[in-house]
Order: sequence, then C-alpha cells, then structure tokens
Amino acid sequence: MIETISKQYELYGFEPVETPAIEYTDALGKFLPDQDRPNEGVFSFQDDDEQWLSLRYDLTAPLARYVAENYQHLALPYRSYRYGWVFRNEKPGPGRYRQFMQFDADTVGSASPAADAEMCMLAADTMEALGIERGQYVVKVNNRKVLDGVMDAAEIAPDKRLTVLRAVDKLDRLQIEGVKQLLGKGRKDESGDFTKGAGLTEDQINHVISSLTLRVKNSDGADGLSFQGLGKDFFDISKIKENLLFLEGMTELQQINSLVLAAGYGPDRIKIDPSVVRGLEYYTGAVYEVELLLDTKDEKGRPVRFGSVGGGGRYDGLVSRFMGQPVPATGFSIGVSRLMAALTLLGKIDTKPATGPVLVTVFDRDRVGDYQKMVQQLRAAGIRAELYLGNPKNNVGQQLKYADRRNSPCAVIQGGDEKAKGEVVVKDLVLGSQLASAEKDRDAHLQKQAEAQSSVPEAKLVDAVKDVLKRHKLL
Amino acid sequence: MIETISKQYELYGFEPVETPAIEYTDALGKFLPDQDRPNEGVFSFQDDDEQWLSLRYDLTAPLARYVAENYQHLALPYRSYRYGWVFRNEKPGPGRYRQFMQFDADTVGSASPAADAEMCMLAADTMEALGIERGQYVVKVNNRKVLDGVMDAAEIAPDKRLTVLRAVDKLDRLQIEGVKQLLGKGRKDESGDFTKGAGLTEDQINHVISSLTLRVKNSDGADGLSFQGLGKDFFDISKIKENLLFLEGMTELQQINSLVLAAGYGPDRIKIDPSVVRGLEYYTGAVYEVELLLDTKDEKGRPVRFGSVGGGGRYDGLVSRFMGQPVPATGFSIGVSRLMAALTLLGKIDTKPATGPVLVTVFDRDRVGDYQKMVQQLRAAGIRAELYLGNPKNNVGQQLKYADRRNSPCAVIQGGDEKAKGEVVVKDLVLGSQLASAEKDRDAHLQKQAEAQSSVPEAKLVDAVKDVLKRHKLL
Repeated sequence: MIETISKQYELYGFEPVETPAIEYTDALGKFLPDQDRPNEGVFSFQDDDEQWLSLRYDLTAPLARYVAENYQHLALPYRSYRYGWVFRNEKPGPGRYRQFMQFDADTVGSASPAADAEMCMLAADTMEALGIERGQYVVKVNNRKVLDGVMDAAEIAPDKRLTVLRAVDKLDRLQIEGVKQLLGKGRKDESGDFTKGAGLTEDQINHVISSLTLRVKNSDGADGLSFQGLGKDFFDISKIKENLLFLEGMTELQQINSLVLAAGYGPDRIKIDPSVVRGLEYYTGAVYEVELLLDTKDEKGRPVRFGSVGGGGRYDGLVSRFMGQPVPATGFSIGVSRLMAALTLLGKIDTKPATGPVLVTVFDRDRVGDYQKMVQQLRAAGIRAELYLGNPKNNVGQQLKYADRRNSPCAVIQGGDEKAKGEVVVKDLVLGSQLASAEKDRDAHLQKQAEAQSSVPEAKLVDAVKDVLKRHKLL
Repeated sequence: MIETISKQYELYGFEPVETPAIEYTDALGKFLPDQDRPNEGVFSFQDDDEQWLSLRYDLTAPLARYVAENYQHLALPYRSYRYGWVFRNEKPGPGRYRQFMQFDADTVGSASPAADAEMCMLAADTMEALGIERGQYVVKVNNRKVLDGVMDAAEIAPDKRLTVLRAVDKLDRLQIEGVKQLLGKGRKDESGDFTKGAGLTEDQINHVISSLTLRVKNSDGADGLSFQGLGKDFFDISKIKENLLFLEGMTELQQINSLVLAAGYGPDRIKIDPSVVRGLEYYTGAVYEVELLLDTKDEKGRPVRFGSVGGGGRYDGLVSRFMGQPVPATGFSIGVSRLMAALTLLGKIDTKPATGPVLVTVFDRDRVGDYQKMVQQLRAAGIRAELYLGNPKNNVGQQLKYADRRNSPCAVIQGGDEKAKGEVVVKDLVLGSQLASAEKDRDAHLQKQAEAQSSVPEAKLVDAVKDVLKRHKLL
C-alpha cells in the first residue's frame, strides 16, 4: 500500500523528504481541531535544556517549519511527499488512535489553483491505483473563503467563527437541524452531553443555513461541478454579492473545476461540495476531502458512505509564520490506517496469513549443528527456513504442531535411521493436512499420508523442498 | 536498504510486527547505558489521565511488553522483526541523534544457544546482502556470564559491577591503561573532564584486567573462535574454576562457536571476542556486535575499524518482568543511520540525485487547462511529469531554469505558433546541457541545440517524450 502510494506521488513529480517526529512546541502552532486550551491534543515535554518539545500531530506543520528553514536551497515550487506516524493526546476510541499514520504530498511556493487541482487529481488517481474503482470514491472540493465570505456578509464576530466552522463540518452527521442548534444556543446529543453553541442571532443562523441548504442541494445534483444550483436564492443574502473574499473563493473553485475537467476528471471523480470544511484551523483557501462510497446501499438504494480517508487544503499562512514573506502552499494527506481498513473491507488487501518458513526439526538433540547446516543450505537457496528452537524436550510430533501454528508448508526430519542411510525426510505439510481432513478410513489415511513425505539423499534436500513448494505454487 | 534487510530477516523465518512509539513509562524499565538517574535519557510526559508515558528508547523493551501482553496467542518460539524510530533525551552531537532508526529481529521463547548462533549468522548474512564484502565486517560474540563470573570470583560488590561493565566496554577506545583507571579511582580525559571510577581494590583490578588481557590477546589471534588462548594463566585466577556462572558462559560460547562453524561461518565472519560487553543493562547471556572493517589501513597496515553498526544479545529477564514465569529471549539490532553512513562511504548506496520529472511549461497563462491535460497524458503513460506551478509571470526561459534545478530530463513547450499548427515542442534538456558545455562556437552551438528539441504533432507528445527518456536510458 505504501509502495503504491509512493509510486503515484512520484509520478506527480513529488520527491520523498522526511521530517523528525519531534518539533519545538512553538514551531508546531496551535491548529488542532476541537481543542480550545493551548497545546491541548498535543504530547509535549521538556528536554534537558528545559526547551519545550512536542510530538508532531500531523505532517503539515513540521513541513512548513522544514521549508522555512531550508527555503534558500529549495527549487520552488517545492514538491515533496512523506509518510509517518503522528500523535494526538486525546481519549482513544474506536477508529480513534493516539498514534496513527499519515501519507502527505505538498506543493510549497505556488498560489495557483492549478496546484490545488493537481492535489485533487492526485487523490483520485491514488485511490484507483490502490484498486478502489471509479464510483467507489469521490474527491470533494470546497474553499474556506466561500464560508468566510458568508460569515462576513452575515457580520458574524471573529471569535464565533471557529465554532461555526466546526458546526458546518458536522453537517453530514447531524443534518441541518443539528447544525442549526450548534450555531445557536447549543445541542444535547443522545447520551445527554451538551455542546455549547456559537450563539448566533436568528438572522445570522438563517444566513449560514440558507447558504448551506443551497450547497447541499447543489452537491447532490448530477452536475455537481457547476454553480447553477447557487442561483438567485443564494445571492439574495444581503451583501454577499459585494464580498470580495466570497467572490475570490468562488472564482478559485471555478478555476479548479475547469482544470480538472480539462484534464478529463469528471464529477464522478472530483466534485465541488460546499459542505466540506476540514477541521484544521490552518487552511486558508481550497479544501478537499476523499470520501469512499462503499457498495452497500441504504434503504433508499443510495450507496452508503464509508467516510473520509484523506483530505487537505491550502495553508498559505503556515510557512510564512517563520519568514518575512508570504509563502503559499497546498497539500493532501491520506489517513493510512483508515484507508487500510477500507481496502480490507473492499477485499483489496490480502488478509490471508502468509505461508510460514520451512521447519527443520530437531530429532536428535546432540546433532543441532547438522540441522542448523540444513537450515543454512535452504536459506542460501533463497528458501525461508528455520530451525526448531523450542523446548528441546519436545518430540518431533510436538515440533510439527509448532510448524502447523507457523503455517509452515514443509518440514524436514532426520532421525538416526535416516542419518545412517545418509538420507533426510521431507514432509509436505499442506498435502498432509489436506489428506488428514479428507480421509476418514484410518488405513487409507495412513497410506496417503505416507505419500505426503519422501526420504531423499542428504544432497537432494534443497531440491526436494523446492518440489514441495512448487507443488503448492509457493516458488 | 530497508527492503534488503527485511528480505534477509524473512529468509530466517522472522515475521514483521510493529509496536507503538509510546509506552507506559513503567513498562520500558530503566536499562539505558550511562544513565544514573531514573528515566534519564528518556523523553517522558503525562497524558490527560496523568499516566506517565515515554517515547521508546529502543525496540527491545517495547517488544518484551508486546510479547508478554500477547503471550497466549503466539506460536513459541516467536520470531519477529521490525524497524522504526527510537528516541533518546541526550545532548545531540556528531553521529549522535535524539531520533534514530533501528532494525531489529528477536526470538522469544528459546533458551537455546542455537537461537543466539542464528542471530550472529543473520547479522553476517545481512551485511553481505547489503553488499559489504567478506573481510569488511566481523560479528563479535561474547557472554555476559563470563565477566559476571570473573567479578564473582574477584568478590566485586554488586553496586560496582555496572561501572565495571561500562569500563570494559570502553577497552577499544581507552586501551588497558584507561580501563584500569576507570576500575580504580577514576580517569581524567583530554578535555580535563573527570569520570569517577568503580573504586576496586588493587587485587580486584588485577583480576579483571588479567582476564581482559588474555581475552584481547585471544581475540586478535587467527583462531579467534578457540579458547586455547584462555589457558593456564587465566585459570590461575582464584576461584574462577569453581564459578558456575563463568563456566556456563564459557560453555554457551563454545556451543555458539560449534554451531556457526557447523553451518559454515568461519572466524572471518563470526568470532568470539571477550571484550564485547554492550552498554544496555538488560543483557543476561550472549552479546554480539557487528563491526565494519573498512579498506583503509592504519600505519601498521591493519584495517581501520569503522566501528559497530549493530549488536544485540540475550535478555532472558525482560519479558518475564511482566509475567509469572521465565521467558528466555534473544535479539539483534541494526543501527540504520550508522550503517547507511558506512554503506555510503563504501559506495554501496547510490547518492547521485534522482532524475526529476518532465516539466510541462506554461507559455500562455490562459491555457493552463491545455498544459494540465498534457501533464495528465504523460502521467497516464507512467511518465513522471509536472506542470510549472511557479510565478505565472515567469517566462519560458525562467521556467527552464526551474527544470534545471529539478534535474528534469525533458521539457514540453507549446506557444501560440505551435498551437495553431497543432504541434508541441519537446526539448531534450540532458542533450541540451551536454551541447552547451561542449560547444564554444556560437553558431554551431545554436544549431546543435536545435537538434536537442523537436516539434511534434500534439498526438505524438507521449511518444516524443518517451524517445527522449529512452535516449538517456531513463525508460
């Protein structure tokens, strides 16, 4: 999976660059979603010089620090990719880990919507490279400036806007009614927990919801990439027509739309969906999300959503925090653990246990050296093999039980009789277990089992083992 | 490098298993070398439940915790491998990082010296798989019980033994005289820093040094794997002949020696060297170290030592800390960063910069969509390609400078004239730069440069780019 994604990112011109797992706390910034206290959500500690350090909570903030530090040496626009563990100091839960893996691609130094369009195409191509078929995924695109413009027009105070973003982010799960509550006084969930709302006025709530309603309608339509749905009703909202931020966001979305269409990516793969917000605070423009649509249907026959397996966006302010100049940047991140769960569900990842190594048993404890030599002969021939290293008192029968648990295809045995004849017994364990389950008659069973093992001259050991592996297409 | 090591470990029957980067502080234990205060050397912090957590300082202690937790589900002996970052809260310095990578293999549940012998053979085979030739490395083996036995016989108090181990560990660097000082009152180094010694008596120092002298002599001999050097003088040390721990250690070393010899690993690859101690406190028996011997010679014509790139040993007490029963275990660890430095020095790792992607330039800012389409055609054909995303005011000449910094083999240009003819210009940048440097005559230069670029029909774009890549063996 890692190899497939790497190959795809490299095809797009991105180059591998790793950054450390630890950063100075100040360098990371405070951009985590749903965290109100400073540094909440982040694991932090002091080193021996009493400097505060933090484990990275994503791969974007450390990249911004890295780019700022190496700015003079980089060919701009700078395209790089990386994967690695990130850490969140949160309560773990189902599908919610304190350590998880992300796989990111970033373009730093380009303000062009073409850089954003490319991230969306990369996301789509990567899904298909991983075996997720067209129609099983969709890349949804929005622009933070659009909602920011609506909030401007509705005169929503700056200190309430993060709460509004978070409320809109929950639209999928809570529906319009739930979002309305979170924009107002607050919402009590099924468990009785109360979440305080943004405290907007009735009028402000209507502005935000009105825009959202239109958007959701638009995103469901077949022509999801056109803005026809955002018609008369939407533009009736006071002041929105004169809001430059809003118009800028709309224009950028149109440009991304044209570019992906020109490159042959239709709305079945990439579509504008203004309900996409993304939780992280550092996004400044385009935001995108890859959603998996599984084959199962809901009661209305629509595909059930597995949900987001990746996303990203434009973070024009993150690198410039360290520098005296603006540095535009955009990136895309895959949630590796979540995507792997999805691929397993789709049967795209083989979860059958791998075949174990060939086991050389220890029949005669005084001749471990001889058995070790056999193991090394097999390994030298490129065959996975191991010597039985368990309790030396275990007899061959007990050792074969271990081979069974190891899923070994083949076992090698040499007792005193074989040694005297210069021979070695090679046992086909796959055939042996097939026979054992198929045959109920004891005599027939024993006879067939004998066929599953052969005594060969010591010099033919490697060949005989190879024959067994070939018989089961393991070589 | 990671792939080569993985393949080798799998050939030996080890299976990949990863453990988290964070452990409960109690689970890690306090086994770091050169750390006297509890938890010194480790990054630790509390989570929201005020539980103490630590970043792993190696991959062994976390594996022990993992095995204890999953003991009932594992086929014993349990062979597994993993690689990952580990963290030390130390002052960074040359070749001394606070974050570095280790690559480990472990066999848990076997007390057999055959398990240790196998680790040594694995180490030797891995070096050769990485291209380090026979004679350029050596795996040195010792047993902690041997020195423990000597310390018993010399009646050295338990609280002084760690200091003795650390002193012996420095034999390579400090020679006999330096070790003697560290066993006694202490040692002042070149910078004037004083290290407190173990405070042994004159008699005790002589016991330890006497055993070490014999050992060093033995390890330098051609028959490094025999114990002939450990003759009469050595056994004259009082009580050593009756010390069971010492005799046990010697017997285990003899067994490992026999096994590796039987499997065809001579002392040019694996040899007994009783100066090997290994810094970590958790080792209980066999210890091993892989040392690289580079081709350069010192003034006496002997190969200069690059030093240790990996090591390991038996840690029979580590898993059982979590369980009510003894669980023997042994493991081997590669210091990936250090080994990579060595491989680079040996020219075994290609450090030439990789070829960059094909650059599609933006001649006409209004036709970014057309250029984007070309990029996607190239990518769809498996060719690394990117659209120029830099400052849109930059002309094609400036864009080609970027291509140069990116090490791009080829650039694609389409101006208005080409567009009108339905053509596209494919520029061979490798040939172009060769011509530029070889040719001084301006006219000839210009003519040859013209040969390095061709105008082809739009539909032939992919073929023309492939031709350029094939010309330079990049496809």
